[in-house]
Amino acid sequence: MTTSIIIAGPRGKMGSEAINMVLEEKEFSLVACLDHKYAGKSIADIEGLPDIDVPIYTDPERCFQEKQADILIDLTVPGVGYEHTEIALNHGIRPVVGTSGFTNEQIDRLSEVAKETKTGCIIAPNFAIGAVLMMQFAKMAAAYLPDVEIIEKHHDQKVDAPSGTAVKTADMIKETRKSKKQGHPEEKENMSGARGAEDDGIHIHSVRLPGLVAHQEVIFGGPGQMLTITHDSLERKSFMSGIKLAIEHVKNMDELVYGLEKIMIQQ
Amino acid sequence: MTTSIIIAGPRGKMGSEAINMVLEEKEFSLVACLDHKYAGKSIADIEGLPDIDVPIYTDPERCFQEKQADILIDLTVPGVGYEHTEIALNHGIRPVVGTSGFTNEQIDRLSEVAKETKTGCIIAPNFAIGAVLMMQFAKMAAAYLPDVEIIEKHHDQKVDAPSGTAVKTADMIKETRKSKKQGHPEEKENMSGARGAEDDGIHIHSVRLPGLVAHQEVIFGGPGQMLTITHDSLERKSFMSGIKLAIEHVKNMDELVYGLEKIMIQQ
Amino acid sequence: MTTSIIIAGPRGKMGSEAINMVLEEKEFSLVACLDHKYAGKSIADIEGLPDIDVPIYTDPERCFQEKQADILIDLTVPGVGYEHTEIALNHGIRPVVGTSGFTNEQIDRLSEVAKETKTGCIIAPNFAIGAVLMMQFAKMAAAYLPDVEIIEKHHDQKVDAPSGTAVKTADMIKETRKSKKQGHPEEKENMSGARGAEDDGIHIHSVRLPGLVAHQEVIFGGPGQMLTITHDSLERKSFMSGIKLAIEHVKNMDELVYGLEKIMIQQ
Amino acid sequence: MTTSIIIAGPRGKMGSEAINMVLEEKEFSLVACLDHKYAGKSIADIEGLPDIDVPIYTDPERCFQEKQADILIDLTVPGVGYEHTEIALNHGIRPVVGTSGFTNEQIDRLSEVAKETKTGCIIAPNFAIGAVLMMQFAKMAAAYLPDVEIIEKHHDQKVDAPSGTAVKTADMIKETRKSKKQGHPEEKENMSGARGAEDDGIHIHSVRLPGLVAHQEVIFGGPGQMLTITHDSLERKSFMSGIKLAIEHVKNMDELVYGLEKIMIQQ
Repeated sequence: MTTSIIIAGPRGKMGSEAINMVLEEKEFSLVACLDHKYAGKSIADIEGLPDIDVPIYTDPERCFQEKQADILIDLTVPGVGYEHTEIALNHGIRPVVGTSGFTNEQIDRLSEVAKETKTGCIIAPNFAIGAVLMMQFAKMAAAYLPDVEIIEKHHDQKVDAPSGTAVKTADMIKETRKSKKQGHPEEKENMSGARGAEDDGIHIHSVRLPGLVAHQEVIFGGPGQMLTITHDSLERKSFMSGIKLAIEHVKNMDELVYGLEKIMIQQ
Repeated sequence: MTTSIIIAGPRGKMGSEAINMVLEEKEFSLVACLDHKYAGKSIADIEGLPDIDVPIYTDPERCFQEKQADILIDLTVPGVGYEHTEIALNHGIRPVVGTSGFTNEQIDRLSEVAKETKTGCIIAPNFAIGAVLMMQFAKMAAAYLPDVEIIEKHHDQKVDAPSGTAVKTADMIKETRKSKKQGHPEEKENMSGARGAEDDGIHIHSVRLPGLVAHQEVIFGGPGQMLTITHDSLERKSFMSGIKLAIEHVKNMDELVYGLEKIMIQQ
Repeated sequence: MTTSIIIAGPRGKMGSEAINMVLEEKEFSLVACLDHKYAGKSIADIEGLPDIDVPIYTDPERCFQEKQADILIDLTVPGVGYEHTEIALNHGIRPVVGTSGFTNEQIDRLSEVAKETKTGCIIAPNFAIGAVLMMQFAKMAAAYLPDVEIIEKHHDQKVDAPSGTAVKTADMIKETRKSKKQGHPEEKENMSGARGAEDDGIHIHSVRLPGLVAHQEVIFGGPGQMLTITHDSLERKSFMSGIKLAIEHVKNMDELVYGLEKIMIQQ
Repeated sequence: MTTSIIIAGPRGKMGSEAINMVLEEKEFSLVACLDHKYAGKSIADIEGLPDIDVPIYTDPERCFQEKQADILIDLTVPGVGYEHTEIALNHGIRPVVGTSGFTNEQIDRLSEVAKETKTGCIIAPNFAIGAVLMMQFAKMAAAYLPDVEIIEKHHDQKVDAPSGTAVKTADMIKETRKSKKQGHPEEKENMSGARGAEDDGIHIHSVRLPGLVAHQEVIFGGPGQMLTITHDSLERKSFMSGIKLAIEHVKNMDELVYGLEKIMIQQ
């Protein structure tokens, strides 16, 4: 049976990638898009998007009423995304939402709506399956190998260091790792910064070079052994398999789940 | 409180390493060793072992009667190890056994004895925490990223290829991975062997070079991303943290567990 | 002073990338293109190419007479490329030619023409600076560390294994390495192909996975140490810096050089 | 023909390793050792050294007169090493000296003595062939790929960061690299130290973990490609192949050479 899908945010990088993904999957059918402009137009009218006759709505209420879809893929921004998600749940449409920007209050509120309407919902700050696994594995390993450093590598057009993923990974490691200072107790830097940034004893190093895309290594050391978990992300389409996985799962769910790992790894 | 320990196989590579580990830990006390010779002698009498006055027994019954220890660390061979383990359980001594050679029947039988005597027992084919984690993570990842290849690298004095760990890793991956042929459907080798060995579509490559010790990479590929799990084992002492972990756990157990992963990762 | 350039093969993947490169460089000026069709048209007339008014010629003689350029960048096929190169040399236009398909006789003949006309010419089978360096370094290292294995990794749409670069690298290594059989003398494969392909004792392993692009590791082992040279090629534009380097050098040359390494590394 | 060798500093870590190396090589013969004590004793008298009857001298003059050896391997400290080297040259004994501590004046003076006596001499701060190649290759690559970062990884008992090898590598890179600031012009560290140490725009990162020994990666990035040169040093015996190489070369030399790279790579 075909899964009918509405995509919110079709003109963004992730949104246009999602349109391609939905069109490529035989069991998926794109029935509408939600945008903040182009009401009444079709996807075919927008330059850079595929030549398909899929209607664009600006009003989510009207969209969900006229197009009773199974799934909403929301790739907009937090404010708009919250509103879309709540309205979709009230129409029995299951949302798959890619955002890291919701507050805890917003997630709690949407959880309640999902429970009341018995409608599954998945909100994920990261849909890259490999990155999600890397972070989960790092969290598990840190319980047994508490000496760990993170090296993240990105293209040299990235302004911030360290990357959000590195910071997130350190946070997850801290959930299981016994707090400790690493390295030699009298360790000293002959050149400032050599030992990288530090978060509760975990060292984080940021490499920036042309030719790199987005990479991260989490290195655990113990007596006589090393365990390294590496993720390389080269293209945006790496997120699409995570969105597909979420769609598969959300169809059989009747509540809200936050984080792709919750449906991937037994917690 | 001190944990009193008997070590079986004190003259082997693992056994002598275990003696050092027990001597280094303040809460551990080595009360006896089991060997197939040197009855009545002391560890100090054996060349290459530490200068400590710990009695050596050849008869396990007598050893366990005279020295009511908490733990038996058995690092012998399967036949002898089986016998030691059964007798230890009947004396209420908790065995931590490092062997990959027990048959399923032997493990079933020992499980029953452990249950009857309500005595914890851990049997593990591999005590290297990093290697155990690598294999568990590989098994988990394969459910989501079914395209995978294994590269194992060892010193050039190793005769067999691929390594036992690589074969075992492929077996574990097959538990979760949907069977598939990988690579281009019309893939061809212009030089025989280029694509490595194959097990159910999983390719395995064995590198042998001086300077290497024991290393393995498990590489998962998906659209636009890679996930790689690497383990480097440089010294035998890497096994000792696994034995310590097993000792900690077995003290609070009243049945037999096979595989270190069972006490490390929620299954 | 501006360098005026003619590009042969503008519609190919490399050719269109070269057009972009020439347009981006302030000191370069694109004066014409050579193609086997579209005579009299302009680059702007061809879909997918930039909207610039650069004339297309099909007759190289006429092209080189009407447009007295400094440089010909030839990214066509060996037969046509040979003809273009010879005619360019006779017009005093310096060719930079990207092809691995010329015969030794053709290269000898073009060398003579270059010498007679005192016109510089660079022919290179590979313009990726990193790949050229990897191969040169591998050749140098093999004189001192004769135990070596090559792991090349490509996307799973590649049909042939091993890659042409891996075969070329092994050939270059053989120029300096003393021939030897590697590994344990009684080495045995429990699974066929585990030890990879073999060329004069050098083992070559080919990995094919989605998410990979084009990667190669050359691993040298010696007692107590490893040296690894890795090249990762992610985008076709990696070739453009090699072409720019060749243009810089060819301007001051009055003979033919084969291989980018000849102008990069003291031989 | 056998090469007769004197080793200075037989009780040090490097010296005792060198004794083993000389004993293992059929064409080498150990005729004496130089030490600051144990005059008149034999190597067999010293605990921890092999049971061989090789005389120990404390006076270099007397040693070189009584034992007209081909080669002096000096693995002592700069002050003593300088004296040994000068005296050896004056006796026509070719020195192979492992030290990074000589001043430029000392090297100049020894060069003159070598020239006058027409006696070959090799002084090398690093005898690890792989490390020497890594640094040379890094220097060559930096001429073409000026964006580079260094990651060095050592065991967590190392006090200083970055390692001497990393600092030396950066120095060598600067010989060929056009000075530049790397990364995004407005790059900012959200956690102090994330971008590592910096030397003329080259970033250096130091990782310290148990399980590591001594490792370094030099990563070059360019548009669409990466080139990485990695050295892993696991055991002290990695230096012995460099010493053997120096012995082979010094026999045919009649002057002083500083740095193993000088006899390895065409400069």
